[in-house]
Amino acid sequence: MRYIGIDLGGTKIAAGLTDENGHLIMKDSVPTRKEREYPEIIADMAALCERLIERDGIKTTDVKSIGIGCPGTPDTKNGVIVYANNIRFRNVPVAAEMRRHLDIPVIVDNDGNCAALAESVAGAAKDAAHSITITLGTGIGGGFIIDNKIYSGFNFAAPEVGHMAIIVDGEQCSCGRRGCWEAYASATALINQTITAARWDSNSLINELTGGDLNRIDAKTAFDAARKGDEAGIRVVGQYIVYLAEGITNLINLFSPEVFAIGGGVSNEGEYLLKPLREHVKKGVYSREEIPQTFITAASMGNDAGIVGAAMLGL
Amino acid sequence: MRYIGIDLGGTKIAAGLTDENGHLIMKDSVPTRKEREYPEIIADMAALCERLIERDGIKTTDVKSIGIGCPGTPDTKNGVIVYANNIRFRNVPVAAEMRRHLDIPVIVDNDGNCAALAESVAGAAKDAAHSITITLGTGIGGGFIIDNKIYSGFNFAAPEVGHMAIIVDGEQCSCGRRGCWEAYASATALINQTITAARWDSNSLINELTGGDLNRIDAKTAFDAARKGDEAGIRVVGQYIVYLAEGITNLINLFSPEVFAIGGGVSNEGEYLLKPLREHVKKGVYSREEIPQTFITAASMGNDAGIVGAAMLGL
Repeated sequence: MRYIGIDLGGTKIAAGLTDENGHLIMKDSVPTRKEREYPEIIADMAALCERLIERDGIKTTDVKSIGIGCPGTPDTKNGVIVYANNIRFRNVPVAAEMRRHLDIPVIVDNDGNCAALAESVAGAAKDAAHSITITLGTGIGGGFIIDNKIYSGFNFAAPEVGHMAIIVDGEQCSCGRRGCWEAYASATALINQTITAARWDSNSLINELTGGDLNRIDAKTAFDAARKGDEAGIRVVGQYIVYLAEGITNLINLFSPEVFAIGGGVSNEGEYLLKPLREHVKKGVYSREEIPQTFITAASMGNDAGIVGAAMLGL
Repeated sequence: MRYIGIDLGGTKIAAGLTDENGHLIMKDSVPTRKEREYPEIIADMAALCERLIERDGIKTTDVKSIGIGCPGTPDTKNGVIVYANNIRFRNVPVAAEMRRHLDIPVIVDNDGNCAALAESVAGAAKDAAHSITITLGTGIGGGFIIDNKIYSGFNFAAPEVGHMAIIVDGEQCSCGRRGCWEAYASATALINQTITAARWDSNSLINELTGGDLNRIDAKTAFDAARKGDEAGIRVVGQYIVYLAEGITNLINLFSPEVFAIGGGVSNEGEYLLKPLREHVKKGVYSREEIPQTFITAASMGNDAGIVGAAMLGL
């Protein structure tokens, strides 16, 4: 059987065809043009699926399901996107609307859940029944896999890992609450921390690396400076890793997943990030060393996680 | 069928006989005398079970299982208590040892998990597939019920809800980490907060209620003073509820349980605690009001939660 996964983003609609092991056979995309009404966007999604089916030379009946992942809150049971952060969907009956174009079962879910499922089926958490995958980006997205299935609570709204407060009454978060983890450990937070450090220390390598233009600072800049021995860079990275580790420690103390996978651009820093991160987590984790411990690693599915995870919703 | 549940505490071994709905038919207890070697303690546990069976006039074969709950880390799969906080058990093969006395299947689990299971089967979370129960005591214990079953992670160590940091680098916790939730929101923390307030404000009703002896302050004192309009009491209770609410908000954002039950003596404060608590949580929860929201309530199984939950391990 074949599976189709769609990553419905604010900029583009990416779709892919996979086998039952989450192996990506082909992919394609079209612009979202998110200002449009939902029937037009969904018609484009259906056309994209048809193109993949045609290109692979298979029939509609060879496709077991179409999974759709998008940021926001799904009603998985009824195939409805209740609310999306990045497009204007409010209570859109996506599954029913797709079925007007294509006779294939449709499943919707949150994009963080899809990324976690992708890592669980084909990526860094492949052999673990219980795993957590987070993505460090504008915020911190995440998904919990329990017994090889997505866990999203009784109302499909869980888990909002980024909105776990790690410092009560701390930094203002975009959600309205204060002290949320993503206000300290998202890529956005890292960029803000790097900009602040560059302002305080105008002789730092951070300033040199960006030609003095602080707008050019990204989530790599502090790491680049730190690797070259720059004090400001080392300070920023050290503090950032503490914030990241404290949130991960919380999630391990709460969940004991076998694998904890970290995705997003920051995870490309590899062992330079992971080694001190693991050391900090080890100090804070409650369970004793004589019992098996959670393995912390980089996510491995990269940009295809959304497509593959959405496809695997049909498993 | 009948089920036996044992609550293995540091002071006493309490056991009860239930039906399959978690209805407690009878209970009994003996002192733990925890300084003894484990075979003696386990022999007493078996004798207690035999006494319940005899008193109910049933046969051993009428008992489906004996569940044993204790603080610490179980190896549920192998029926071993890896580590207990309150007695000297280290890697004790409890199930095998019990079987030397009685031919009934034995299951071990953590006491926080048992309390959560009791609330799920027969208490405040009776009709919810997903629920969380916490107990506010010396620390904060807790259990997660997912799909009507205990969830304890791949190593049976989860969830350590009390050891979720809510203020990175905050108050020292007994676990070695800093800023853990239980350092702010356990009954012990509330008592410490009340003592501090009484020291700062010697005219407060707190001092009067305890006859000036701060050692007599317990987890009720600040609530008693607050209900009578005492400013110091109101301040302590208000801040305590914020700490409690922030941790609960985190757990709701992460898990979206249908029911969140609060046990331990503090939960006897009823709506005086729950009303402001719910209001604070509502402000911090990420999910929008148009989708179903977690119901926060007091646990209802009281001191029998441990026994009944342990019995229900055999369901």
